[in-house]
Amino acid sequence: MPRLYVLVLSGGAGTRLWPLSRKARPKQFLGLLGERSLLQDTVDRVSELVPDERIFVVAPPEHRGLVYEQLPELRTDHLVVEPYPRGNAAAIGLAMAALAAFDPEAVVAVLPSDHVVERRDQFRKVLISATAAAEHGHLVTLGITPTRPDTGFGWIEAGDALAIDAPVEVRAVRRFVEKPKRDAAERMLAEGGHYWNAGMFVWRVEEILRAYDEHLPQTASAIHALREAIGSPRYESVLAEVWEETDRTTVDYGIAEKAKNVAVVPADIAWQDIGSWARLAELVQKTDNWASDEQVAEDAHGNYVWAPGKLVALVGVEDLVVVDTPDALLITPKDRAEDVKKVVDRLKREARDDLL
Amino acid sequence: MPRLYVLVLSGGAGTRLWPLSRKARPKQFLGLLGERSLLQDTVDRVSELVPDERIFVVAPPEHRGLVYEQLPELRTDHLVVEPYPRGNAAAIGLAMAALAAFDPEAVVAVLPSDHVVERRDQFRKVLISATAAAEHGHLVTLGITPTRPDTGFGWIEAGDALAIDAPVEVRAVRRFVEKPKRDAAERMLAEGGHYWNAGMFVWRVEEILRAYDEHLPQTASAIHALREAIGSPRYESVLAEVWEETDRTTVDYGIAEKAKNVAVVPADIAWQDIGSWARLAELVQKTDNWASDEQVAEDAHGNYVWAPGKLVALVGVEDLVVVDTPDALLITPKDRAEDVKKVVDRLKREARDDLL
Repeated sequence: MPRLYVLVLSGGAGTRLWPLSRKARPKQFLGLLGERSLLQDTVDRVSELVPDERIFVVAPPEHRGLVYEQLPELRTDHLVVEPYPRGNAAAIGLAMAALAAFDPEAVVAVLPSDHVVERRDQFRKVLISATAAAEHGHLVTLGITPTRPDTGFGWIEAGDALAIDAPVEVRAVRRFVEKPKRDAAERMLAEGGHYWNAGMFVWRVEEILRAYDEHLPQTASAIHALREAIGSPRYESVLAEVWEETDRTTVDYGIAEKAKNVAVVPADIAWQDIGSWARLAELVQKTDNWASDEQVAEDAHGNYVWAPGKLVALVGVEDLVVVDTPDALLITPKDRAEDVKKVVDRLKREARDDLL
Repeated sequence: MPRLYVLVLSGGAGTRLWPLSRKARPKQFLGLLGERSLLQDTVDRVSELVPDERIFVVAPPEHRGLVYEQLPELRTDHLVVEPYPRGNAAAIGLAMAALAAFDPEAVVAVLPSDHVVERRDQFRKVLISATAAAEHGHLVTLGITPTRPDTGFGWIEAGDALAIDAPVEVRAVRRFVEKPKRDAAERMLAEGGHYWNAGMFVWRVEEILRAYDEHLPQTASAIHALREAIGSPRYESVLAEVWEETDRTTVDYGIAEKAKNVAVVPADIAWQDIGSWARLAELVQKTDNWASDEQVAEDAHGNYVWAPGKLVALVGVEDLVVVDTPDALLITPKDRAEDVKKVVDRLKREARDDLL
């Protein structure tokens, strides 16, 4: 894999994991599943394939310190700073400029920093296959094998297999399906050949730059200007100037759904995103009520408790999420866990920056 | 009221208000309803009738510091130390020995330290009436006007009015009813002339000592030995010796139910005990969800939250009790709040003294 690079996307806010996930330390920086943070785990996961000096990270300025703290092996010039959020098409484009300047022949895997992958060997095979397809000129998405008729993800319908020699079959993409209705999701699950779009991509840098040129010309011209400026004292002022000209969209909508050369590698890798406390609870609950230490439950079942260093006593309650931090405590039923976003929105309106 | 003394009983553990109420600081020492603790409020409530030097307190040795801290006006020799719990008949007997030695003519009002009385003027009238009856040689109980068919209290059935000149009518006691069944409680409530036994008594010291002689002779002989020893260096050793010989019972069962000269003063004083979080919630809830500060509730109603200094976010939960302390957090529905006792019992079995 001589040319494979990894770009880790670390721009997410993780508000649905409030009050643990905060503006100053969003979920990807937290050890939600063990000692290593989700960000560190994202890098660990590819370390057998990709040496440290080929890791890039894109993150907002306020998280530079955390990124370097958690990834001491990261090259200083491989942290790409996104001035403020303009959608992942702009953030990824910005990182592509850096990558193109560093190695115009690069193949790069774009990986969000808040995913969990349990079948790590299979993930590497998928990545090797996607790299092979990318070297043939494809924009490759990883298509997660669906395990339920989830209406929260976009789906990908795969077409014919492509003639690419790889450990996992590479297929053409017939179409992208935006977050479907329940019955459509059930049909796709039953039918097979449909996958979740998890926002993981592999492509040659020059290929994705061509796609920006074609589908997102505003962002493309920003990328070209940045690529020229990288390493020079002009970079910061060029960035300040071009950033606000970029298209506000995602790579999925802005490029993948429009490009003709998109391929998919089915990824049966026991994948999860950690989108909410309820999802995290499914993933890590060790005993009936607790994510961490054993505590006191009297006639209490199925609760998820995160409260390190504190004894939590549950009496007669079921299926609650309880998250305790030094300055904020959240209590909600698992099936309302998505509404934590509303709490965060309220705190924003009330300018409670101390709690965000 | 030249001879009225007050004995405040401060021996309770308050386990059903865990995790706020702890062994080291039980509920009577907490400002559950405001700045002043329940203990302080008990003394405040009688201060117009009883000067500081006529207040006595009985408490276990481990709470001496707290009592003197909260009641700096208490005379040093008016704190009676109960070596270890043997029921309130022994604790009250011990204090009667001290009172008899201090003033053999004393009339004393025995008041638990964990009650709430809202109609304080009426309470004073009741106390004046009970004192008048006590001066006539009666053992007087205060009979709380019932507001619901409560099966958690003992009840008192009143008999004929007694010929005592007092602001509130004094009545004979026909009988004591132990914690009744629901239908019996409903009948008594409907019928009238029945009152809750709240464990508040007024009597002449010499009269109650006579009753100990007659009904609890073991405790009576301990009292006599202690009365002789008070103020001498022998007191501690006499106490150590006689304490284990006292009858293990309550004044209600051991004396009041047996004595012939018991009277009751109906007390319509807006009284509450603070027996559980649910009871406290009824009493102090200021807004829909909060005992203290306004916090964040999304579709959450009727919850009682005690979490000073912390933001608590409730999403989609109802009628919960949430009590947060630095080392322990309790979550339970209001109608299960009594089961907090089970948590405390479990912690005792597991020798978690740090949390008790």
